[in-house]
Amino acid sequence: MTAPRIYRAALLVIGDEILSGRTHDRNIAQVASWLQVQGIRLTEVRVVADDMDAIVEAVNALRTRYDYLFTTGGIGPTHDDISVDAVAAALSVPVIVHPQARAILEHYYKDKDGGLTDARLRMARTPEGADLIENPMSGAPGIRHGNVFMMAGVPSITAQMLASLTGKLEGGLPVLSETVGGWIKESEVADLLRQTEKAHESCQIGSYPFFREGRTGANFVVRSTDRAELEACMAALCAGLDGLGLEYTPGGI
Amino acid sequence: MTAPRIYRAALLVIGDEILSGRTHDRNIAQVASWLQVQGIRLTEVRVVADDMDAIVEAVNALRTRYDYLFTTGGIGPTHDDISVDAVAAALSVPVIVHPQARAILEHYYKDKDGGLTDARLRMARTPEGADLIENPMSGAPGIRHGNVFMMAGVPSITAQMLASLTGKLEGGLPVLSETVGGWIKESEVADLLRQTEKAHESCQIGSYPFFREGRTGANFVVRSTDRAELEACMAALCAGLDGLGLEYTPGGI
Repeated sequence: MTAPRIYRAALLVIGDEILSGRTHDRNIAQVASWLQVQGIRLTEVRVVADDMDAIVEAVNALRTRYDYLFTTGGIGPTHDDISVDAVAAALSVPVIVHPQARAILEHYYKDKDGGLTDARLRMARTPEGADLIENPMSGAPGIRHGNVFMMAGVPSITAQMLASLTGKLEGGLPVLSETVGGWIKESEVADLLRQTEKAHESCQIGSYPFFREGRTGANFVVRSTDRAELEACMAALCAGLDGLGLEYTPGGI
Repeated sequence: MTAPRIYRAALLVIGDEILSGRTHDRNIAQVASWLQVQGIRLTEVRVVADDMDAIVEAVNALRTRYDYLFTTGGIGPTHDDISVDAVAAALSVPVIVHPQARAILEHYYKDKDGGLTDARLRMARTPEGADLIENPMSGAPGIRHGNVFMMAGVPSITAQMLASLTGKLEGGLPVLSETVGGWIKESEVADLLRQTEKAHESCQIGSYPFFREGRTGANFVVRSTDRAELEACMAALCAGLDGLGLEYTPGGI
């Protein structure tokens, strides 16, 4: 049996507001969860400022290395929205006003104050050769060029663009996961985790400690693309926790 | 007058749980906000899996490019905690058991179930030549080696390690910022933002749109290291918003 192909993606988050700490990023987790369902593994994330050189360098590093590159941020109407120019530069293509994007924006703004102003028309600019990603929420579309997918910075708009792409990208087997957790110090179960993972080659076990209400706990996540092996590994882990006399909760705490 | 030196940092977030979407990262915003106060600019963030090659490559790319590199995650007691080994490999130094870290852990675990087990002793391992970063919360220290600072993945522990480092790193002038916001479409003010920024060379203006309760709004953030120029730029921006008949709230909405 040939090993199934693994599809990998990177995410480039573009925006000063994340790097200043002003805005808490929500797109990493959103894109990560969505990719899991598509059978695509998010393998690397980078966050860079609204800076032409930084964006160009990251786009070229990531689009050549992974099957897919997603970007969020910098495709709005204001002066600090330079992602289209930067991606076009990275791809060595000119920026054009995309006729279909222009039509969408003309329709969207036709009854709105000021209509399709120059600033709004900026949102119809794409690297030449791009297709659009539908955005039912606020008109301005996302942009696809080859394996590069440009999406909004506002998480609710990004969600709509991801919904438009659902099921349309080639992926592999989705990674399945199961979790148990408890008020367990991970140092108590380190040997158990290591041995259990070793005995189940096609599974990975992650250990995620936390402190809550002044107490120490951890969740243990088993991941595999094979349902039967995942369940066998989780059963072995639970038997091991029983053997150590530790209480745990399926699904995690 | 010589331009003041700008100190720049990168953050490397290490952990499968962020890339799977299971855990929402909170360290990026936390480290970013802390660095601002230290007068250090967070310039790039990368997120990689608990994978030796990926960590080594990112550590070497980032530590050579920026004044400081911070890492979070992968310094606990379990088999998937490989950050110490990876950073040591990146620095081409061996991993040792740090005598002072060992003493801290012996003290911390002396009255606890099982005492200092082999698994717990893993948390005393450091790249050779490292200093420790104090962690009053859970004993196991962070690690400093040259310009690389290794911290925990659990945000509340990272917070304690950052507190231990406060005021100890050389930085430049902190970036100051002021915000106004309103139920304003950013496309209505794109020209105003561009012109205002152009007229105030030492300031940057960021525009951060959002959708809430079915309405469109935006916050506008002016940043500068110079208090007087920041205030002049903000005054000009507010005068411009007044001129357009737009209502806004100081501090943002």
